[in-house]
Amino acid sequence: MGTISWVKGHGTENDFVLLHDPDGTMRLDEGLVRELCHRRRGVGADGVLRVVRSAALDDGRPYADEAEWFMDFRNADGSTGEMCGNGVRVFAHYLRVHGLVDPSVELPVGTRAGVKRVRFEDDSQLSVDMGRPRLPGPSAVMVSAAGRSWPAVPVDMGNPHAVAFVDDLADPGPLVEQPTWSPSEAFPKGVNIEFAVWRGSRHLAMRVHERGVGETRSCGTGACSVAVVAAAVDHLADQQVNLPAGEAYRIDVPGGSLTVSFRADQHVVLTGPAVLTARGEIDL
Amino acid sequence: MGTISWVKGHGTENDFVLLHDPDGTMRLDEGLVRELCHRRRGVGADGVLRVVRSAALDDGRPYADEAEWFMDFRNADGSTGEMCGNGVRVFAHYLRVHGLVDPSVELPVGTRAGVKRVRFEDDSQLSVDMGRPRLPGPSAVMVSAAGRSWPAVPVDMGNPHAVAFVDDLADPGPLVEQPTWSPSEAFPKGVNIEFAVWRGSRHLAMRVHERGVGETRSCGTGACSVAVVAAAVDHLADQQVNLPAGEAYRIDVPGGSLTVSFRADQHVVLTGPAVLTARGEIDL
Repeated sequence: MGTISWVKGHGTENDFVLLHDPDGTMRLDEGLVRELCHRRRGVGADGVLRVVRSAALDDGRPYADEAEWFMDFRNADGSTGEMCGNGVRVFAHYLRVHGLVDPSVELPVGTRAGVKRVRFEDDSQLSVDMGRPRLPGPSAVMVSAAGRSWPAVPVDMGNPHAVAFVDDLADPGPLVEQPTWSPSEAFPKGVNIEFAVWRGSRHLAMRVHERGVGETRSCGTGACSVAVVAAAVDHLADQQVNLPAGEAYRIDVPGGSLTVSFRADQHVVLTGPAVLTARGEIDL
Repeated sequence: MGTISWVKGHGTENDFVLLHDPDGTMRLDEGLVRELCHRRRGVGADGVLRVVRSAALDDGRPYADEAEWFMDFRNADGSTGEMCGNGVRVFAHYLRVHGLVDPSVELPVGTRAGVKRVRFEDDSQLSVDMGRPRLPGPSAVMVSAAGRSWPAVPVDMGNPHAVAFVDDLADPGPLVEQPTWSPSEAFPKGVNIEFAVWRGSRHLAMRVHERGVGETRSCGTGACSVAVVAAAVDHLADQQVNLPAGEAYRIDVPGGSLTVSFRADQHVVLTGPAVLTARGEIDL
């Protein structure tokens, strides 16, 4: 297929291969994505972010009026992805570093889950509006791992999550196998499972098992889910039905630290780092 | 630390970052090796191979008369490594691709385990003399994983191995935890454990758990150990004490396929592929 130029970046160690293809001329098929993401034969990453103008791609054209740039996100297995809270920060950071956007204003980014709005907080921290969570509850489910079970709260952040509080992050074991849940019909399409512990006031740490992937170093929607449940716990006594606008939760993930805050309109805002590390060429 | 240029390569998916430093001017400390090898923040690899002239490095100087080039091998944890059967092929392949050696003659490579001799079989296959194995036996040990136990044969290829034959490569389970062995005093410094199955005549497949690392995609000395034990099994009826000179065993590893043959002087020769994939720069 020839030589491909790439840039590598990560947000809390959720890592991506970025491909510069503003005019959408690259033929990015599943096999190519898998080879690029292969950690030994390829560049190695959790996914690919193709940097392309919305107008240049069928999937992006509906957003072309609102968002100049489209994040063509592919999972490491080659499938197309909709949105990724860590990926969209890395994507926006790439545009800034390459002088393609004005960092003093909010950046609309086209994604297959619609237009996402990113703010450049400082040189390395970026915020993204993750939308409104949905709490399908009130009934809790049970999740099980390493021969133990915990009650978990379902949260829908566009994708399904279940948040369980554990005494110690080591309790769920190595998470090599898919944790189970009951009742099994609670998540017919699978679920991302967060195991969380309190570290202090508005400060938690978590591990996550992503459906179809396994344990990962970070999960943006997972951190949002943990913060949503933590806020609900913090305000149980208030009989408060809304998320606490203006409050911020620090969520430590294995790959770093994220901040989740809530807006008055009940949108969840995810703030975290993005860095570009290596760049190079690969023959495929 | 600035910007570092690198080349990435692998042999049966045992992968390495190659650093071009013929005059030995680079300050390659443990922290730098760990960052280069980090699979999300760095380039990502099992280890670093610094390409340096033997005369330019304290560790290489004793071999300078015999071997122009020294393989300064570091493990991903930053520690210095002695030898690596997959790494030395990738190292030699790099020298050939960059026009630094004559591929029509045997190449002596300085390593911390002495001078190793590499032959260029064709454009992608290379052979390396791995020296004489030692069979500390005759008493077998037992190795255990996933709640089951198997008899295993100890083999010393410069590093310690134990080879167990299993019915199915899935039997030892996911190998997330260190398999155990008994008697425990059999391997006071730990042991690399190979689980092997026969695939046909002089053809086996294996999985390996490397001490201090975990399960890997390939292990050169592990493949040699499996072939040594397989040859002993094949020639049990002959009451033969020597390794069968000229015979070749194909050993499939998760990351590809290796060939192990035996010379009349009882040296083991490991043949396998080496490829260079990506190249680039990283800011550290």
